[in-house]
Amino acid sequence: MSDETSTEKDAYARAGVDIAAGNAAVARYKEVLAAWRHPDQLDAIGGFGGIFRLPGSSDRALVASTDGVGTKILIAAELERYDGVGRDLVNHCVNDILVVNATPMFFLDYFATGKLDPAVAAAVVAGCAQACRAHNCALLGGETAEMPGLYAPGHFDLAGTIVGIVDVADVPNPQSVEPGDAIVGLPSVGLHTNGYSLARALLPREEWGGLLAEHPSYYDAVRAIEKVARVKSMAHITGGGLLENVPRTLPQGVKAIFEAARWSVPPIMRDLVRRGNLSYEEKYRTLNMGVGYTLIVPLTDAATAAAAAPGAKVIGWIEKRDGDEPQVVIHETR
Amino acid sequence: MSDETSTEKDAYARAGVDIAAGNAAVARYKEVLAAWRHPDQLDAIGGFGGIFRLPGSSDRALVASTDGVGTKILIAAELERYDGVGRDLVNHCVNDILVVNATPMFFLDYFATGKLDPAVAAAVVAGCAQACRAHNCALLGGETAEMPGLYAPGHFDLAGTIVGIVDVADVPNPQSVEPGDAIVGLPSVGLHTNGYSLARALLPREEWGGLLAEHPSYYDAVRAIEKVARVKSMAHITGGGLLENVPRTLPQGVKAIFEAARWSVPPIMRDLVRRGNLSYEEKYRTLNMGVGYTLIVPLTDAATAAAAAPGAKVIGWIEKRDGDEPQVVIHETR
Repeated sequence: MSDETSTEKDAYARAGVDIAAGNAAVARYKEVLAAWRHPDQLDAIGGFGGIFRLPGSSDRALVASTDGVGTKILIAAELERYDGVGRDLVNHCVNDILVVNATPMFFLDYFATGKLDPAVAAAVVAGCAQACRAHNCALLGGETAEMPGLYAPGHFDLAGTIVGIVDVADVPNPQSVEPGDAIVGLPSVGLHTNGYSLARALLPREEWGGLLAEHPSYYDAVRAIEKVARVKSMAHITGGGLLENVPRTLPQGVKAIFEAARWSVPPIMRDLVRRGNLSYEEKYRTLNMGVGYTLIVPLTDAATAAAAAPGAKVIGWIEKRDGDEPQVVIHETR
Repeated sequence: MSDETSTEKDAYARAGVDIAAGNAAVARYKEVLAAWRHPDQLDAIGGFGGIFRLPGSSDRALVASTDGVGTKILIAAELERYDGVGRDLVNHCVNDILVVNATPMFFLDYFATGKLDPAVAAAVVAGCAQACRAHNCALLGGETAEMPGLYAPGHFDLAGTIVGIVDVADVPNPQSVEPGDAIVGLPSVGLHTNGYSLARALLPREEWGGLLAEHPSYYDAVRAIEKVARVKSMAHITGGGLLENVPRTLPQGVKAIFEAARWSVPPIMRDLVRRGNLSYEEKYRTLNMGVGYTLIVPLTDAATAAAAAPGAKVIGWIEKRDGDEPQVVIHETR
């Protein structure tokens, strides 16, 4: 992946995000974490959520994930539109643990700012509460931190942690993915919570309003598909796009082939690609390009799966992978 | 509490922290949260940790808390000492859920910065991992966010979420606290994770090194005391000091009386009090003033409890409270 990273570096680097540094940090974390592992910690799938054996149970596990909304909050702060980011955050977290089939139980938020405006804080938390309630998930707690000197006036950061539960037997097994399987995609509505540093760099402020389209929850769509299809593996398409997120839940011996003509790219992304003259690597790694979530199903279940959720489409398939071929290939018709 | 807040406002306001805004935000959160409550959410004690019924169990519960390390991170960043804040954060979270007697199970961190330095990120996460391991707590996940434009060069924020478990029968019942009970205090080693905005305003940069003394875990001390004494209620002395944290775990009809002569105030705090000419309200609300954690026990258990943990001392007692008397009174000998 090192040459892909250097190719790709330009677009993000223009926006101030250093992918190589991110990969280096992850490599160092692995060293740190290799020193010791709790016996109740189960193997995670692609790092979307950590899995921990439910105390007193042999067949269920807790699944937890922490995430933020990235620099989307700078746009929300600039436009003074605060409640959406709370829903963005909760839905992002819900989708992350959905990758291992977990059902949300509770959520905690972290809101940090330089000078606390109670109305802003309440709007953000109200957004979290709405999205929690929509998932029957308790908003169990949170922290509001006023830190003068760390955040500029009007700026804030927002992160959250979700904890859900899953029957261990229901955790997807990516090793079962095989050549011939189909990939079903669920549509994105915009940038969701990734690519905002790039978007801020490419778009004039007057056009930022369109960037705040809310990160949807894929919970209902995935549950509907699971009722009618065998789901072997799933991925939430966040930072890293299709190129980095899909391989996180694939076995080494296969590759995912996507046909870009099979789904539509939201206008905001076509605009970003044009303005930034983004390369293949840049657009499919920095942006979701219209695909918010992927599910891999047997070919025989593909049509039924796609019919089970609004907007779901068969957008690709699985092939055998030789040697060090890329794990994701996206065919574009021009 | 409104008049206490206005009296106290001066010291924090000098440092840019607005306690009234914090209280207003909390009041608004209560409105937001009153709209809906998950049926498995149990009553929390003083807001130190949220409690959620363990799925499939009638007698155990999960306890979760999110917290940050406040502007202590600005000092750590300025002095380029990074590993301590990870231990600060985990120990802070451990102590928060210890108030309801929970045993840590897993922890997730959130590290956000403007320009990611993998060595700094790894040092912070390594500190978290060390403190997690010391508590047999899994470091189950985390998020590293690079957000250009939100954080100044060299700055970062750090927050974390801990999830623990408790037998519901072991959750302390603050309603059992009664006049005549004794208060046992565990010593602080410095500011822990609160009062740093004030300290940065009062101390010259050359003296900041002393501010990084690590927030200790009180886990072992509390468990040792619980073996020999009946513990009715506990408080972790964080932001708000003795004046705000002790009342969070007291019934309305009692007040806590402290004798300041019974414990020693760390030199760094005596220095801050002198430099800032801090009033009674200012010092006992902004700083822990030498007491990091309190336990309320029957008078008959007090001596045994204090003998069970290093540095533990009987530092006060419980009296009947009339009408709107303050819930905490600290007697100072001059």
